[in-house]
Amino acid sequence: MNGKFYGIGLGPGDPELMTLKAHRLISAADVVAYPALAGAESFARAIAAGSLKPGAVEIVIDVPMTVDRAPAQAAYDAGAARIAEALEAGQDVVVLCEGDPMFYGSFMYLHARLSGRFDCEVVPGVTSITACAAALGRPLAARNDVLTVIPGPLDAAAMRAQVEAADAVAIMKVGRHLPKIRQVLASLGLSARAVYIERATLGNERSMPLADAPENAPYFSMILMTKGDDPWL
Amino acid sequence: MNGKFYGIGLGPGDPELMTLKAHRLISAADVVAYPALAGAESFARAIAAGSLKPGAVEIVIDVPMTVDRAPAQAAYDAGAARIAEALEAGQDVVVLCEGDPMFYGSFMYLHARLSGRFDCEVVPGVTSITACAAALGRPLAARNDVLTVIPGPLDAAAMRAQVEAADAVAIMKVGRHLPKIRQVLASLGLSARAVYIERATLGNERSMPLADAPENAPYFSMILMTKGDDPWL
Repeated sequence: MNGKFYGIGLGPGDPELMTLKAHRLISAADVVAYPALAGAESFARAIAAGSLKPGAVEIVIDVPMTVDRAPAQAAYDAGAARIAEALEAGQDVVVLCEGDPMFYGSFMYLHARLSGRFDCEVVPGVTSITACAAALGRPLAARNDVLTVIPGPLDAAAMRAQVEAADAVAIMKVGRHLPKIRQVLASLGLSARAVYIERATLGNERSMPLADAPENAPYFSMILMTKGDDPWL
Repeated sequence: MNGKFYGIGLGPGDPELMTLKAHRLISAADVVAYPALAGAESFARAIAAGSLKPGAVEIVIDVPMTVDRAPAQAAYDAGAARIAEALEAGQDVVVLCEGDPMFYGSFMYLHARLSGRFDCEVVPGVTSITACAAALGRPLAARNDVLTVIPGPLDAAAMRAQVEAADAVAIMKVGRHLPKIRQVLASLGLSARAVYIERATLGNERSMPLADAPENAPYFSMILMTKGDDPWL
């Protein structure tokens, strides 16, 4: 009998923001798998480290960071083959996913390769967008607001149209796109409403008005902006 | 010395989708508070029930369901006053919040009334949007998709414009708005891409293609739709 395939959300970084279910499943797992970008330490593994069963087998999927997507997809092919081997040997396999597996996660590449052949369960996790709002102590979206989540790499014109049409905005993966995002928000007169936050829930978290944000933003940074002022708040 | 004021996300319904931190804080809390709509049982309390400390004081905020918002806001005024009394007596108070406190939550009304006067910490939770995507086994948003979260009550023209501009859409609080949402998606030729799900992570969860959705959708129902077909999936 084949093992079961799990995709498990670990939350935004603080291990205590893992769910009870994630902790239970990871603690019991004999085989875990996770991607590691270009040989760097895996953020997902770091979040889960305190929950791993001693002696658990770790399948590391080394994902090359190239503009061409074929090498990364070949890495997921190879990783999926190794996971399939364990599943076929009757072992459950837990894939560790930072944040939530289905929210801008690379887990979908493994899910697409394996969920048709094996019993699969996805355990949702706390996303960075609500973790950032919690850390800032401000609503991400309220009542009948339209909330738009925008990846930082989006081009300026498309980003401007999206921000213009939304009531509330979360711009993720800010990193090197910060200058462009600043310009977009300034062109709409919204800069003063925007807040910058990096490494939410980690020890070195910091946040500030967008105007004071650093020139060089890390990849794990975000900008939140709401247009409305709820008269009842 | 005043107590500390916590807003704690409980996740979408399955108590095991609570975070380790939420469970720790709730288990230790001598005073918890939560809203209950029009005298109905509180969903937040039901999720947290197994974690509550025996003998914990429960501050129930009875929120009337009226079109006029003033009575509800008066209820939050009164609830905030009771919470403030406990905080001033040196007790910590944990507010139980279904989903995430800052994601379309009523917690913001208590936060606005109390966070200026008392030390406050917000603990994020798993939202219904990623819980639904996990239950359905499909990505909510991928790579550089723009994800738009739309409350069901939005009027048809505004909803249509938002759906048209997005790569991926989560329409929340579907309930009695289902016929309107069907029309909007049909007018854009997107019906076949949409999936309906209700009561995600609860015992009576069910999901189906939008075409097969029931005439009468409960409040806790959602529609997910993505336009893209990632060639690498």
